[in-house]
Amino acid sequence: MGRAGAGDGGGKRFRPRLVIATYEALGGTDRTAAAYVAAAFELLHTALVLHDDVIDHDFHRRGVPNVAGHYRERALQRGASPEDAAHRGASAAVIAGDLALSAAHRLIDHSGVEDVLRERLLEVMDEALFASAAGELMDLDMSLHSAAEVDDIVLMERYKTAVYSFECPLQAGALLAGAELRVVDALAEAGRELGVAYQIVDDLLGVFGDEGQTGKTTLGDLREGKRTALIAYAARTSAWADLQHLVGKPDLCEDEAGTARVALEACGARAFAEELVREHAARASALLDHEWVPEAVRTSIRPLVEPMLDRVR
Amino acid sequence: MGRAGAGDGGGKRFRPRLVIATYEALGGTDRTAAAYVAAAFELLHTALVLHDDVIDHDFHRRGVPNVAGHYRERALQRGASPEDAAHRGASAAVIAGDLALSAAHRLIDHSGVEDVLRERLLEVMDEALFASAAGELMDLDMSLHSAAEVDDIVLMERYKTAVYSFECPLQAGALLAGAELRVVDALAEAGRELGVAYQIVDDLLGVFGDEGQTGKTTLGDLREGKRTALIAYAARTSAWADLQHLVGKPDLCEDEAGTARVALEACGARAFAEELVREHAARASALLDHEWVPEAVRTSIRPLVEPMLDRVR
Repeated sequence: MGRAGAGDGGGKRFRPRLVIATYEALGGTDRTAAAYVAAAFELLHTALVLHDDVIDHDFHRRGVPNVAGHYRERALQRGASPEDAAHRGASAAVIAGDLALSAAHRLIDHSGVEDVLRERLLEVMDEALFASAAGELMDLDMSLHSAAEVDDIVLMERYKTAVYSFECPLQAGALLAGAELRVVDALAEAGRELGVAYQIVDDLLGVFGDEGQTGKTTLGDLREGKRTALIAYAARTSAWADLQHLVGKPDLCEDEAGTARVALEACGARAFAEELVREHAARASALLDHEWVPEAVRTSIRPLVEPMLDRVR
Repeated sequence: MGRAGAGDGGGKRFRPRLVIATYEALGGTDRTAAAYVAAAFELLHTALVLHDDVIDHDFHRRGVPNVAGHYRERALQRGASPEDAAHRGASAAVIAGDLALSAAHRLIDHSGVEDVLRERLLEVMDEALFASAAGELMDLDMSLHSAAEVDDIVLMERYKTAVYSFECPLQAGALLAGAELRVVDALAEAGRELGVAYQIVDDLLGVFGDEGQTGKTTLGDLREGKRTALIAYAARTSAWADLQHLVGKPDLCEDEAGTARVALEACGARAFAEELVREHAARASALLDHEWVPEAVRTSIRPLVEPMLDRVR
């Protein structure tokens, strides 16, 4: 299914940066505690990405070998058969993911914060993992159906990525800073909206992006038949008759991808998805604009998020 | 590689029963806290078993569908292709394992014990996971070599299974009861010895067992070429010339298995493995017999462990 790499596209270690930026903007000064909690979210991401790649039988991520790829390579060098080497690689990645997930918990345990707060932070991380699990299962369920609705896609992307990548890091940073409840909630909700917007941007770039800039092929999502708002919109238009055989075609060539892109533009799917990005980003902005959200939060979070969204604007 | 099902062969929920028996034998009275910690070890086992089955592409465990098998079946019923359904099943099992692993941490968090003890219990669970990961990697590494030594096999089995299944549950029960350090250490070490003994029993039953009693085929381990002390011993004898082509033969028939069993007996491998069981069990007994280990511990632990070991004695 592939897990979108906010953190790759959006700059390295994006999630921990959100935790720390939020924490400091809200007046937090215990950089050690913040670093522990921030690192926990990075390791949660690591665990999810590792296991995602195992599920997808991927031995590379963004063109370089992942953990499974490295271990597969080492086994091949030691004379293992290709099948045994792949098994070795995938096994190492499952184990590495388990260790990372466990370490994410331990980092929050070791953050040194008092009991009630630690418990609350662990709940937030749990929520992140559960949402991600739910999103992943929704994604898999949708793959068994021919056509999902735009709303279902957006909900799936929200659960699968937005919650753990945006909502929970912002929420954790705010909780750690001891922010008042309405600020914590506004940041969590803004994070969710930003996360959805980010994910739709990622989907747009997966088809229309500049490979040189994104480092991501613009054939992969089309070949895989990835379920995105873009495709779900197109599937409800008359353009679908021309698109249907191209979306999910494993050996789609560059010419066919060009045809698909033209059709996705002509039927209004691209414009629709871009509008969806603007809507969610605007909702996030409105939440951050509440008078009781400190100005410092706006000035800290926006520079981290806007460049990612601007990629399609 | 398959993870031996102490808990299947050894009775249901074996690990939590070890935690609680140890705790109560040492005078612990907070049954709620004990239940939380005990359940954490059961969920750790669940997580490891789920991920093991994904690594091994297993959709069944002891003859019944596992999580992956259930989800594969559901997907097939909904019209998925066999390949898509298998993917759906394995994905669900990876996710379920992640949730179980995370829940294991949360259960210890929620056990209500004070900070220092909670931290110590989390360390024990971490140690359990790390040992298991190390054992699994050792197992995979050995599979790339032709012949491992008996000592390496025993060490691998100790890490992979004995630590998390026996050593850590006993240790956790003792810590929770507030036992003095030398009692905690003696129980941990006894658990390790019992775990190794149990694992060798399991390996023996995997070849010589009564399928009606164990519910486990006696062809599986031989077909898989499972690395056990039994096989490692045989590989150092002249009998190996006759055995070599049978161990790891994927389509081994019952007649060939019979030939292998006769050869494993004749070369002394069976007697050697049985002696190894007795040695490790005796070491465990000696540890539990220390005068400063309360009598109640011996009378609680022995009835749980001896029936499992007696299966080959």
